[in-house]
Amino acid sequence: MKAHRSVVVVSGGLDSVTLGYSMQREYGPSLWLSFDYGQRHRKELDHAEFAAHEVGADWRLVDLTTVGALLGADALTGHANGVAVPYGHYAHESMRITVVPNRNAIMLTVAYGVASAAGAEVVAIGIHGGDHYVYPDCRPAFVDALVALEAQSLIGLHTPRLHTPFLHLTKADIVALGDHLGVPFAHTWSCYEGEQLHCGKCGTCVERREAFMLAGVVDRTLYRDGED
Amino acid sequence: MKAHRSVVVVSGGLDSVTLGYSMQREYGPSLWLSFDYGQRHRKELDHAEFAAHEVGADWRLVDLTTVGALLGADALTGHANGVAVPYGHYAHESMRITVVPNRNAIMLTVAYGVASAAGAEVVAIGIHGGDHYVYPDCRPAFVDALVALEAQSLIGLHTPRLHTPFLHLTKADIVALGDHLGVPFAHTWSCYEGEQLHCGKCGTCVERREAFMLAGVVDRTLYRDGED
Repeated sequence: MKAHRSVVVVSGGLDSVTLGYSMQREYGPSLWLSFDYGQRHRKELDHAEFAAHEVGADWRLVDLTTVGALLGADALTGHANGVAVPYGHYAHESMRITVVPNRNAIMLTVAYGVASAAGAEVVAIGIHGGDHYVYPDCRPAFVDALVALEAQSLIGLHTPRLHTPFLHLTKADIVALGDHLGVPFAHTWSCYEGEQLHCGKCGTCVERREAFMLAGVVDRTLYRDGED
Repeated sequence: MKAHRSVVVVSGGLDSVTLGYSMQREYGPSLWLSFDYGQRHRKELDHAEFAAHEVGADWRLVDLTTVGALLGADALTGHANGVAVPYGHYAHESMRITVVPNRNAIMLTVAYGVASAAGAEVVAIGIHGGDHYVYPDCRPAFVDALVALEAQSLIGLHTPRLHTPFLHLTKADIVALGDHLGVPFAHTWSCYEGEQLHCGKCGTCVERREAFMLAGVVDRTLYRDGED
């Protein structure tokens, strides 16, 4: 592998792919890491791989399926037999079921280890302001604590910086940035369901539609309910 | 699986197996997690599984081989083609090659996630005073930073406590405790090499022998160099 300037956590969603594009275009060769927790579907991961190829980034899949199995029944994992994906807006209490305990801490400690070994300057993750309400591991205090941990953990080793450029942006801001960068939004995946098209109704679909609308960017996503 | 009171990081070495015994015996049902980074050999992992069975703990293997591959060439992983295992005492500079960047941060964030999902009260790890010199992620400041991170990461979710009872003990103290608990030391593995017997010469073998001697406990380990 060539020398990478950044290691980017990329799920294959709109936010993380936009971040990956931004890092590759403005910062130099990047390594994108996608994490397989045994999610309900692999569509996100396939989209991450596709987008990495499009922009010329390297992409690696980190297999955490044995971790996912131990994290228990959850709407985001394929292990949640019979647990329905909740419909509605992210900020609703029903979305709490989508919390995977410690997910960002696990992904970021892996990304830091990889970036330290590779000598990369930066670890980047696309957490943003809209995630703060439901997910504690998307908040500024979490980011500060993670940086403090890594400062201890990597004493004497190469210690990358953490880059969270979306931390105080809205999802609409990210859509506007992605539009500017030429992100192939059609090849990003938000829906919790893994059908052919986005369902248009689940929490992340509702957020996605709203973000395009607020950003004033044409939403070319094909939604199953036809209201695109 | 039954309800677990603790989730214990157990490599299969002398320290972690003694900790696992202590948690299972004194604290109640425990879940031992062993991590496969694609180590040079699987002997440690087999010993962890055996010891868990002996004491009645549950054991799960966490497959991190794709992470190990990305952490690069290292004496502890099977990926280090041609990198020889360093001989000598742990505290020597040559042992720096055995540092896997961020390893304890990765293992502990996984263990915290699992323990949070399982409702376990405690996450335990057997880092001890003898590790402080070489490994930054075995020091008290690292432990404090990890606890601070998890306090943020798991807001609103079940947050286990971190238990590091060996943090200020020597390896000889641990041998004395393990002797008291009836730990089957013959079924713990320290050697970096994966041969039939402990080599007796590498850093961890030297430390192991010294610990038994200082603790005044008979060392029944069979060493390849015959000086047992």
